[in-house]
Amino acid sequence: MGRWQPNARGRLEEAALDLYTERGFDQTTVAEIAERAGLTERTFFRHFADKREVLFGGQDALLELFVTTIAEAPDSVAPLDAVAAALEASAPVFADRHRQARRRQAVIAANPGLHERELSKLAAMASAMADALRARGVGETAAKLIAEAGVAVFRVAFERWATEEHPDDLARYIREAVDELKEITAAG
Amino acid sequence: MGRWQPNARGRLEEAALDLYTERGFDQTTVAEIAERAGLTERTFFRHFADKREVLFGGQDALLELFVTTIAEAPDSVAPLDAVAAALEASAPVFADRHRQARRRQAVIAANPGLHERELSKLAAMASAMADALRARGVGETAAKLIAEAGVAVFRVAFERWATEEHPDDLARYIREAVDELKEITAAG
Repeated sequence: MGRWQPNARGRLEEAALDLYTERGFDQTTVAEIAERAGLTERTFFRHFADKREVLFGGQDALLELFVTTIAEAPDSVAPLDAVAAALEASAPVFADRHRQARRRQAVIAANPGLHERELSKLAAMASAMADALRARGVGETAAKLIAEAGVAVFRVAFERWATEEHPDDLARYIREAVDELKEITAAG
Repeated sequence: MGRWQPNARGRLEEAALDLYTERGFDQTTVAEIAERAGLTERTFFRHFADKREVLFGGQDALLELFVTTIAEAPDSVAPLDAVAAALEASAPVFADRHRQARRRQAVIAANPGLHERELSKLAAMASAMADALRARGVGETAAKLIAEAGVAVFRVAFERWATEEHPDDLARYIREAVDELKEITAAG
């Protein structure tokens, strides 16, 4: 074990986002990220498997949070509301990560390979949420539709939140998107 | 121009699906597809840009059909119903393509790269449908949500249709999924 590095993970993330933004993701190496952060490559690999995981590592924790929240919702809660609660539960995670989230979005939008990876992660999220709904007794088709709608709500809400200069809590955008989804389908 | 080849495109598609199923997509070359179809590589490239386009070429036509149908729906039609009509309009395209659709699904499911490509195509579809809805005066957030929900409906319906041994018309599965989406969101 090396010397203890206060907030090494956060510094590596900042350095990586700086470099991905300045040079592009493909043009950045792990060695350069570590150097910019004033840390070693060894320290980088203690925190991230590779330079892509700086961008996507958090999504596994998010998926876990979504699935657990759906599983733990009381039986009386309607499936869509269980999903909405799961999505809202993520808001505290992002409370002080607005700047990182904005920069991350821009890096991913600029790189088709990263964009495909993001879609793949979101699809895995929908699939895991559908499993969690089925475990609550929701039918096959309904579980898939609710999970996909949930991911759509999350994407739309997250994008609005990330795009705004001084956003409100992410949970507000999620609630608004869920309400909008309900209105849309009631009108249709 | 070479000699006229009756249904060259269909024969090439059949040969490609055979080989992708037998050997895997990555292990198949264009030369082998042409040979299996009894045609030349030159003929292959007259119909498809590459071996991936055999699987994804149809999606561009589908996107076009969705967008046009949404654009042409009367103003009185609610946005979600315009999307539902667009999705249903695709049913005739697939009427005699059940066997191909099933095999295509299996090939894509077996290959992560193709699966990412599929997700990317579906995301482009959602994005184009959202644009078509905005052109009808639907708000930003609503347009995205309806388009994403529409793609989710299509995926779920298409998968049900493709999975069944002797399916009914695809339009029926689409209508059922739309109805289920409405029920879900009304209950939530």
